[in-house]
Amino acid sequence: MRKTKARRDPRVIARENAERRRAARPAPAPVSPLAPPGGFPALPVIEGLELSACAAGVKYRNRPDVMLARLAPGSVVAGATTRSTTRSAPVLDCEAKLAHVEAPEAGAAILVNSGNSNAFTGGRGVESVNAVVTALAETLGLPASRIFTSSTGVIGQPLPHERITAALGQLAEGLSPEGWTAAARAIMTTDTFPKGATETVTVKGGEVRIAGFAKGSGMIAPDMGTMLVYIFTDATIAQPDLAAMVRRLTDRSFNCITVDSDTSTSDTLLVGATCKGPSVAGEDAFEAALGRVMSDLALQVVRDGEGATKLLEIRVTGAESDADARKVALSIANSPLVKTAVAGEDPNWGRIVMAVGKSGARADRDRLAIRFGDILVAEHGWVAPSYTEEAGASYMKQAELVVAVDLGLGSGEAVVWTCDLTHRYISINADYRS
Amino acid sequence: MRKTKARRDPRVIARENAERRRAARPAPAPVSPLAPPGGFPALPVIEGLELSACAAGVKYRNRPDVMLARLAPGSVVAGATTRSTTRSAPVLDCEAKLAHVEAPEAGAAILVNSGNSNAFTGGRGVESVNAVVTALAETLGLPASRIFTSSTGVIGQPLPHERITAALGQLAEGLSPEGWTAAARAIMTTDTFPKGATETVTVKGGEVRIAGFAKGSGMIAPDMGTMLVYIFTDATIAQPDLAAMVRRLTDRSFNCITVDSDTSTSDTLLVGATCKGPSVAGEDAFEAALGRVMSDLALQVVRDGEGATKLLEIRVTGAESDADARKVALSIANSPLVKTAVAGEDPNWGRIVMAVGKSGARADRDRLAIRFGDILVAEHGWVAPSYTEEAGASYMKQAELVVAVDLGLGSGEAVVWTCDLTHRYISINADYRS
Repeated sequence: MRKTKARRDPRVIARENAERRRAARPAPAPVSPLAPPGGFPALPVIEGLELSACAAGVKYRNRPDVMLARLAPGSVVAGATTRSTTRSAPVLDCEAKLAHVEAPEAGAAILVNSGNSNAFTGGRGVESVNAVVTALAETLGLPASRIFTSSTGVIGQPLPHERITAALGQLAEGLSPEGWTAAARAIMTTDTFPKGATETVTVKGGEVRIAGFAKGSGMIAPDMGTMLVYIFTDATIAQPDLAAMVRRLTDRSFNCITVDSDTSTSDTLLVGATCKGPSVAGEDAFEAALGRVMSDLALQVVRDGEGATKLLEIRVTGAESDADARKVALSIANSPLVKTAVAGEDPNWGRIVMAVGKSGARADRDRLAIRFGDILVAEHGWVAPSYTEEAGASYMKQAELVVAVDLGLGSGEAVVWTCDLTHRYISINADYRS
Repeated sequence: MRKTKARRDPRVIARENAERRRAARPAPAPVSPLAPPGGFPALPVIEGLELSACAAGVKYRNRPDVMLARLAPGSVVAGATTRSTTRSAPVLDCEAKLAHVEAPEAGAAILVNSGNSNAFTGGRGVESVNAVVTALAETLGLPASRIFTSSTGVIGQPLPHERITAALGQLAEGLSPEGWTAAARAIMTTDTFPKGATETVTVKGGEVRIAGFAKGSGMIAPDMGTMLVYIFTDATIAQPDLAAMVRRLTDRSFNCITVDSDTSTSDTLLVGATCKGPSVAGEDAFEAALGRVMSDLALQVVRDGEGATKLLEIRVTGAESDADARKVALSIANSPLVKTAVAGEDPNWGRIVMAVGKSGARADRDRLAIRFGDILVAEHGWVAPSYTEEAGASYMKQAELVVAVDLGLGSGEAVVWTCDLTHRYISINADYRS
C-alpha cells in the first residue's frame, strides 16, 4: 500500500459533500401511482419479536432513520445478500455470521440505518460495523455474533456511527411487539411508500404468522438506493432448513425483479424465526406462505421503482432451459427501448423481438410467439393475422401489463417483474445536480 | 405449423401502422451537440468504386432512401454482422455470401434502403431480399452471389421491395465516383448528421485510399435504428486477409461502443477493396489506417446516440484478463445510473464502484482506483485524499469525458465508448405515442 501524505480528514470531506448534496436535492417524490391501495398493511404480533425506531440524525433530519429488531433467545436467522464484488462492510459482516452460526440459543438483533450505506469506506467501514455491533451487544446483552446490521444510503462516505451508538439506549427502550410501521419507515430512502406484507398459515401444530417489510426503489440507486428486506415468523424451524428455504424462495422473488439492471452494494434479506410457534418441519404450506410474503414485498419494490408508472410482468416459456428463459426475460426487462415503449404506451413488439435476439439464449425467430396479456401479437416469425394495432395500443394503457414470450423450443420458463423507464427516472438520477 | 384463417393482408396492416406512426412522430431532432465540427468530410475517389442514391419512397417522402455502391470486377468484400438470434433476412443473406465467396472476379454491389428493416417479416422477408437481389443482378449484369443488401428502419412490416426495384434504373444511371454524400444521407434514419471518415496511407507500392460512411443512433433503436457501415479502399488484398483484418478491427471499434445496450437485428459492416491500387500484403500501416477509419465511424455513431450530450470513454486496466476488463467497461457504459449521473454532470463515483461490483468480473474493492481524466478520485477502497468534489464537478462539465478504472489485479485492459442517458432519449423512444 502506498503511503499518502496530507490526507484531508475524510469526515470533513464527507460533511462537505453531504451538505452539497442535501442543498441540491429535489422535492420529495409523490407516492408511486403503483403503490398498493390501502397503504401499509396491519402486521401481526410475532411472539418473540420486538421492534423500534428513532431519529439518530445519521443524515436525514427530523425523521426516524434507525431501526432495531430484537429476536428472543432460541430464534434462528437466515438470509441472502448481494453478490456484488464491491459489497459493503455490513454486508460482509452479515455474510460471515450467516455462514457460521454461533450461539443461536442467545437470541438475535438486527440494526439498520438509512442515509449512509457504509459502502466503499475502506477500513473505516469495518470499524464502524464493529463499533455498532459491540455497543448493541452490550446494550442488549447479546453476543456480537448474533447482531446483524445493514446500512443504506450514499456510498463512499464514512458512517457517523457515534450517532447510531448514541441512540441505542432510546432504541432499546422503545422496543415493542407492535413497532412495525415505524421500523418500515425508518429504513426508507427514495422509497415513496413503506412496504409490508403478512401471511398466516395453519400447520399441524396450529397457526404460524409471517410478516415483514422492505425498502427499495431501484434494483439499486447507489446514492440513495439499495434493497433491504426483513421478514419474521414465530415458526419453529431448524436454521439450516430456514436457510435452504430462503435460498430457494429468493431465486423466485427478489432475484426476479429489476428496475434498472443496476445491482446494489448493500442488498440484504434477513429472515428471523423466533421458534415460539408450531414446528413447520415438512409443512409445504409454510414455504408457500413465506414465498408469497417474499414475492409480495419484491413486487412492492418494483411498484416503487424510480419513476415507475407501469408494472410489467415478463413471462417466458418454451425455452431450452429455465436459465435460457431467465436470460430472455431479463433481456426484455432491462432493455431501455422496451421500457421506454411501455412508458409511452406503445405496443412496440419489434422491440421485444430485438430483446429476445440479443439475450444470448437460443431462439428461433420463426418459432417465437409474443402476447400482450391475452392478445396474440406475433407468431411464426411475423405479426399475427388477428392482431390489430388498436388492440395493442388499448392494452398498453393499463397500469399493469403482462408480456408473454413463447420460444417454442422446450419447457424452460421464467417470470421477471420490472417497471417502465420514464422522464422521472432521469429527473431523479440526473437532474438534481444540474 | 398451425393453420391460420382469415389472415388480414399484412400490407394493409403495415400501411395502417406506418401511417399511424408517421402521424405521431416528433419534429426532427436538431443536430447532436457532439457532431464533429466541419460536417461531413470530403471523401476521395476510390478507383473502381461508384456510388449513387435516390428517393424510392420506401417509407420517407421527399428524401433519398436507397443507396447503391458498385465495385469493379476483381474487388473483394468482407464484413461483420449482428449476432442477434432474431437477425433480419438481408443480414442472413449477407452472412451466407460472406461465408462462401463465389465468383469474386465479377465485381460486387451493395444496395441499402432506410425506412424499413425487413426484420421479423417471415418468409416474405426472404422473398423481398431475393426480388431486390435478382433485379439488381440483372440491371448491373452481376451474379446474385455478389449482391449484398441491407435494410434499416421499422421491424415487422413487409418491405415494399417493388418501390426499390422500380428505382434500380435511376440508381444505376446515377452511379458516380463522387456520390459519397448522397449515399451517406440515404441510409440515415434517426441520425442527426451523416457520418464519414477517410485515411490515405503510403505503402511500398504507392498510396492507398480508405473511405467510408456509417449510420446509427443507438446500438439499436429497432423502430428506426440499426448500425450500418460501408467502407471502401482501392487496396489490393486477398479476401481472406481482408476478412481476418475486419474481424480483428471490428472487435476494437464497432464492438466497443454502446448507446443503450440494445443490439440490432440488422447491424451490418461491409468493407470492399477494389484491388485497383497497390498491394497491402504485410503492410501494417494499412491495417492501422483501416482501424482509424472504423474507430472514427464508431465514435461518430456514439456522438449521434439518441439524446446524447456527453461522449464518455471508459478505460479499464489492471483486470485479470482483457475479457474481464471488457465486462467491467461495458457494465459501467451500460449502467443507467452512471449514464444519468453523467447527464446531470454529477461526479458520482459511487455509481462507478457499483457498476464494477455488478459486472461479473473479478474485482477487489480495496485495489480499485478510479480517475476522471487526470483526477484521482478513489483508491485503496475509499475516496482519494487529494480528491475534492469541486474538481470532480468541474471536470464533469466537459462534453467529452474519460473515466479510467484500474482494478489492480493483472494486465487485462479494454476501452469502450458510450454517451449519457437524457430526457431526450426518453422523449425519442417513449413520448411520441403518448
